[in-house]
Amino acid sequence: MRRQLFTIASRLFSRLSSQSDRPSFGIAFDIDGVFLLGHAPVGSPRNLKIPFVFLTNGGGFSESKRAQDLGQLLGVNILPSQVIQGHTPFKQLVNRFENELVVAVGKGELAAVMSEYGDKNVLSVDEYTSYFDAIDPLAPYKRWTTKADIDQNSSSNEMAKRKIAVQTQRVQAAFVVSDSVDWSRDIQVLCDILRTGGLPGRETAKQPHATFPAERLGVGAFRIALEAIYNRTHPILLAYTSYGKPNPFVYANAETVLRNLMPSLLSNLDVENTINSGIHCFKSLYMIGDNPKIDIRCARQAGDPWFSILTRTGVFKGKDNHSEFPADLVVDTVEDAVNFMLRKECGS
Amino acid sequence: MRRQLFTIASRLFSRLSSQSDRPSFGIAFDIDGVFLLGHAPVGSPRNLKIPFVFLTNGGGFSESKRAQDLGQLLGVNILPSQVIQGHTPFKQLVNRFENELVVAVGKGELAAVMSEYGDKNVLSVDEYTSYFDAIDPLAPYKRWTTKADIDQNSSSNEMAKRKIAVQTQRVQAAFVVSDSVDWSRDIQVLCDILRTGGLPGRETAKQPHATFPAERLGVGAFRIALEAIYNRTHPILLAYTSYGKPNPFVYANAETVLRNLMPSLLSNLDVENTINSGIHCFKSLYMIGDNPKIDIRCARQAGDPWFSILTRTGVFKGKDNHSEFPADLVVDTVEDAVNFMLRKECGS
Repeated sequence: MRRQLFTIASRLFSRLSSQSDRPSFGIAFDIDGVFLLGHAPVGSPRNLKIPFVFLTNGGGFSESKRAQDLGQLLGVNILPSQVIQGHTPFKQLVNRFENELVVAVGKGELAAVMSEYGDKNVLSVDEYTSYFDAIDPLAPYKRWTTKADIDQNSSSNEMAKRKIAVQTQRVQAAFVVSDSVDWSRDIQVLCDILRTGGLPGRETAKQPHATFPAERLGVGAFRIALEAIYNRTHPILLAYTSYGKPNPFVYANAETVLRNLMPSLLSNLDVENTINSGIHCFKSLYMIGDNPKIDIRCARQAGDPWFSILTRTGVFKGKDNHSEFPADLVVDTVEDAVNFMLRKECGS
Repeated sequence: MRRQLFTIASRLFSRLSSQSDRPSFGIAFDIDGVFLLGHAPVGSPRNLKIPFVFLTNGGGFSESKRAQDLGQLLGVNILPSQVIQGHTPFKQLVNRFENELVVAVGKGELAAVMSEYGDKNVLSVDEYTSYFDAIDPLAPYKRWTTKADIDQNSSSNEMAKRKIAVQTQRVQAAFVVSDSVDWSRDIQVLCDILRTGGLPGRETAKQPHATFPAERLGVGAFRIALEAIYNRTHPILLAYTSYGKPNPFVYANAETVLRNLMPSLLSNLDVENTINSGIHCFKSLYMIGDNPKIDIRCARQAGDPWFSILTRTGVFKGKDNHSEFPADLVVDTVEDAVNFMLRKECGS
């Protein structure tokens, strides 16, 4: 196949040189699926004496490295300027952020890429994240290392200084250079950077006891991501059922469970044996939660006999009631909630 | 604080017992932010003689384990039936899939949870994924292990048998039990399961040379996920610029690069020194790609002098032209494309 292309190319060359010293056309080749299938080259622009470039959305490595690798693979001399990757245009943006703190997301040699573009203050998201405690809520569950880019030689004292330096410096731009590997962390950190104008974790803590001052993405965010990707890449919309709060089903279910608990309170029977025992009607059912969007919203959706009590011990910290999802009652702590129920249900 | 709640609770109890043996109300407590802030308990329903349950979206562990841990933390006896987690309702679904292959996504002891619900044929997505080669395009870049759930004692022969058994069995349901840890892989695998009706990798290979028969999610999917999550959780929409194909900018840029290559073709000057040299106009510019959605679509968007040639060596395999994004020309290989350009540009 190479030989064949070689013949074509040399014929092309002889023709070209014979008729004009200014080729009137140029070629842009995609790489994957055209020259490279998997890793096996299927053709080569060897000796092609017309201007050509490689145009790919791939990335993660500098154009010079890519040109060298590709040249070896195809057996032809390729200049860095002939390789146009997804992130090549960043070169023209870098001068805008030359000395500003910039975060680069993706696989491969991100720092090398951005540095070759002239960025003097770029951190890979791996390294950037490592300077924030608990910014990734799933980190405890990740049995992997993402701190490879950090200088292992720096002393703990230097690290501490560096940590403060990074945390207090505003991120001016985030570049997704290539495929993100750790999506949940990268999306979390990018959302933090974007939401805070480049200073994650600086906001006044909404959850003082939480390890990171701002709410972290949860399973709901995963569903949004899955749904968005599936629906954008498939003709039929994703079909799913979400069973957690704020699904009102949760409260109907809770009422059943509470009813089944009754016998055990009246006798000492094991509750497990008395599931589905005689029907009992509650005059009122109380939901005590800290999250207006989740706990309160669906308690109100569930309606009578549910009564929602919002505590100030968690997500919600407001002085008055929540504007969008107001609770039936707002109290400081769970104790106050119990006090209220006591007075309401038992008089006094 | 505990003492305080204890006083309240016992007062509540005495009142209750004195007036009625059938409490007329029940309570549902959220856990995080109400009783638990971080890991420190702030209150306890000790001796509360009214029916109460814990209602949380958290999960990953069986209700019995959660009840035990919570009971110890709050110093009160809690029954498994008093713990309602996000995935507790799955218990009522399991009989529908009792012996069917089911995939469970999330952190924690997924197999334990689903088994306790009565599911006899559940695989964690960690284990399920391990039976498919190259299903996760980012796996080579992940310096972590996600195969903890696999029986390490099984011989390679048993593994091979197991592999075939799993690959040929249709996944009947996927349960997101708790937080996904490896988003890119889990979203990829869930999309594969959903798209193929539960049999990933069984479709006729669109890319015979690719390691997995179906197209994998790329950086575009990451953008969709980030955009969807950010826009659903923040009032101001995400602002971003995408520079890769199919952004038409890519082609304007490619034309400039091709023009700057001209001098080096006419003399032996180093191209790098001749960037921005004299203007040269191309009669035609050819984009040769394998992906109609990406390569061809934006080549056509770029318009004259761009001419799009679609090869059948990659994503596209159709006999005729692509219906949605037709190319100016469809050929089998890059060689055919070069042949065409030769005839067209140099006559013959």
